[in-house]
Amino acid sequence: MGKKVLISGGAGFIGSHMVDRLLRRNDLETLVVVDNFWTGLATNLAHIRDPRLNLVTSNIEDFATGDKFDEIIHLASPASPPWYMREPIRTIRANLVGALNLVEMLVPGGRMSFASTSEVYGDPLVTPQPESYRGFVDCTGPRSSYDESKRCTEALLFECQRTRGIEIRVVRLFNVYGPRTRPDDGRAVSNFLSQALTHGELTLYGEGDQTRSWGYVDDIVDALERFFWLDSGITYGGPLNVGNDREISVAEVANYIVSLVPGARIKMCPPIPQDPTNRRPDLTICRQVLPGWQANITYEEGVKRTLDWFRDQIQHGAETDAPSPVRLED
Amino acid sequence: MGKKVLISGGAGFIGSHMVDRLLRRNDLETLVVVDNFWTGLATNLAHIRDPRLNLVTSNIEDFATGDKFDEIIHLASPASPPWYMREPIRTIRANLVGALNLVEMLVPGGRMSFASTSEVYGDPLVTPQPESYRGFVDCTGPRSSYDESKRCTEALLFECQRTRGIEIRVVRLFNVYGPRTRPDDGRAVSNFLSQALTHGELTLYGEGDQTRSWGYVDDIVDALERFFWLDSGITYGGPLNVGNDREISVAEVANYIVSLVPGARIKMCPPIPQDPTNRRPDLTICRQVLPGWQANITYEEGVKRTLDWFRDQIQHGAETDAPSPVRLED
Repeated sequence: MGKKVLISGGAGFIGSHMVDRLLRRNDLETLVVVDNFWTGLATNLAHIRDPRLNLVTSNIEDFATGDKFDEIIHLASPASPPWYMREPIRTIRANLVGALNLVEMLVPGGRMSFASTSEVYGDPLVTPQPESYRGFVDCTGPRSSYDESKRCTEALLFECQRTRGIEIRVVRLFNVYGPRTRPDDGRAVSNFLSQALTHGELTLYGEGDQTRSWGYVDDIVDALERFFWLDSGITYGGPLNVGNDREISVAEVANYIVSLVPGARIKMCPPIPQDPTNRRPDLTICRQVLPGWQANITYEEGVKRTLDWFRDQIQHGAETDAPSPVRLED
Repeated sequence: MGKKVLISGGAGFIGSHMVDRLLRRNDLETLVVVDNFWTGLATNLAHIRDPRLNLVTSNIEDFATGDKFDEIIHLASPASPPWYMREPIRTIRANLVGALNLVEMLVPGGRMSFASTSEVYGDPLVTPQPESYRGFVDCTGPRSSYDESKRCTEALLFECQRTRGIEIRVVRLFNVYGPRTRPDDGRAVSNFLSQALTHGELTLYGEGDQTRSWGYVDDIVDALERFFWLDSGITYGGPLNVGNDREISVAEVANYIVSLVPGARIKMCPPIPQDPTNRRPDLTICRQVLPGWQANITYEEGVKRTLDWFRDQIQHGAETDAPSPVRLED
């Protein structure tokens, strides 16, 4: 008997890459993809011709089925500030009510995997951030719907592990970028690329000296695949930092993209409230749990690949108007 | 037209005191109390003869009605570690899914009040704790179902204030105790009193040097009543620390109770995992928002009153077996 697997958010940026990896599995019997196409795109799955795939259009918090699953991978959530700030209640529902719904759909002994985020560290006072760092999140602030619903979903899963004995895999992802990001995603790399390829004006919020650890999606999905199902014998359920630990400023990325696209230029804009000043994963545990894994693709290479992909998208008429960041009185 | 008010957890310890206060209001038309009697007790409301009261037995996350309410006060949640550690998923549901349900039941311009907790500060590295302190909570730890669902519910309400313009009142309560605590509540004061009055052996976990700021329920409810509805002209929605800022060690309370009850004695027990080492509210904002309010009742006086109440309960046959704290590998 093959495995019955469910993935929420499977039409999204990371989700659709995970679907590709899941469909490589010989032990997979059915793959139910649940997506409400809030931030996911049907085009991300349009290339798939696999009878094991069953795509369901639904909010994950409302999804109902009589089936149970051997493995559930919960990725349903917007990940970009302008998206979750516009619909914070929906963001909390997707993450947490989604997870509450999904944990009831596991077979006994099933495994639930969850994509948490480096945003659980907030604006960190410690660098690099180890998993033991408890974070610096304003639970009443403008980013709280995302940060706190990820934190609370982690709490839920670790408590399910403790009280119900379910197997869990919780990763904290650090600024993933690459092909299949929405052109109107609104985060730095995709924003800069969309802007560079259209009107040419890259909006840099604040001084641009805030740093991130940019993880190219292929590298990140390599790690997720190993942690979620491929590597046998893993007993560590998380939380596991997954990312590239090379820390680069937002301004450096913008300047690099300007150097690649003739006519592109930078426009300085006021800072975004509570934009984290720095972010870099401590990968000590990751190296133990996933020996040999590391993020191999430099940001220079990853940005070039993503640029090519965006260029191709724009030539084929995708939406490219990146939304403005939500303006907030802080 | 009078006000339609809903209170969740209204049969609970603090909730039932709030119901008494609400029924003093002349502008109150109906008061819907929703309680599932998980930690609430019917006896807490047994003295009430008021036709405006409508008691509904339901989980707050499952409660459905066609009515809308002018004011909603969300108190449904266990507050004692042994209770929420035994049923963490239910705890998250009560707080967060309850709040998600309730925010849809407000009339336009309605007000939603929420009892959050000093536990959002976790094991604080700053003392006293101002509301701006972002806390030190392990979102994967054994207390996380409570701490993180309170944090995420705060996030939800502040985001509802921002995106929907609803009026909110969020308080962070510090270690409230007093009459109508369950004898089997399991927190320090009630635990010590139950133990002193039955087998006489007070279980002190760890060295007892962890401090708390014990707030007698009458003082606390005075503040809540003012903040939630009585004082007009409040524009600050919170978060608002409410508590007694006299910081007392757990051992001191235990010794005091031993001095009051002949034959009572202390039994040293191993520490409880992630028991916060200290806790004390910074009341600067509270003094501005609720001028003249302060916690007047000393812990010596409050403990005596609570002792009398517990003694009376025990004579009338209430349950007194305090549960053991949940033991955890940390």
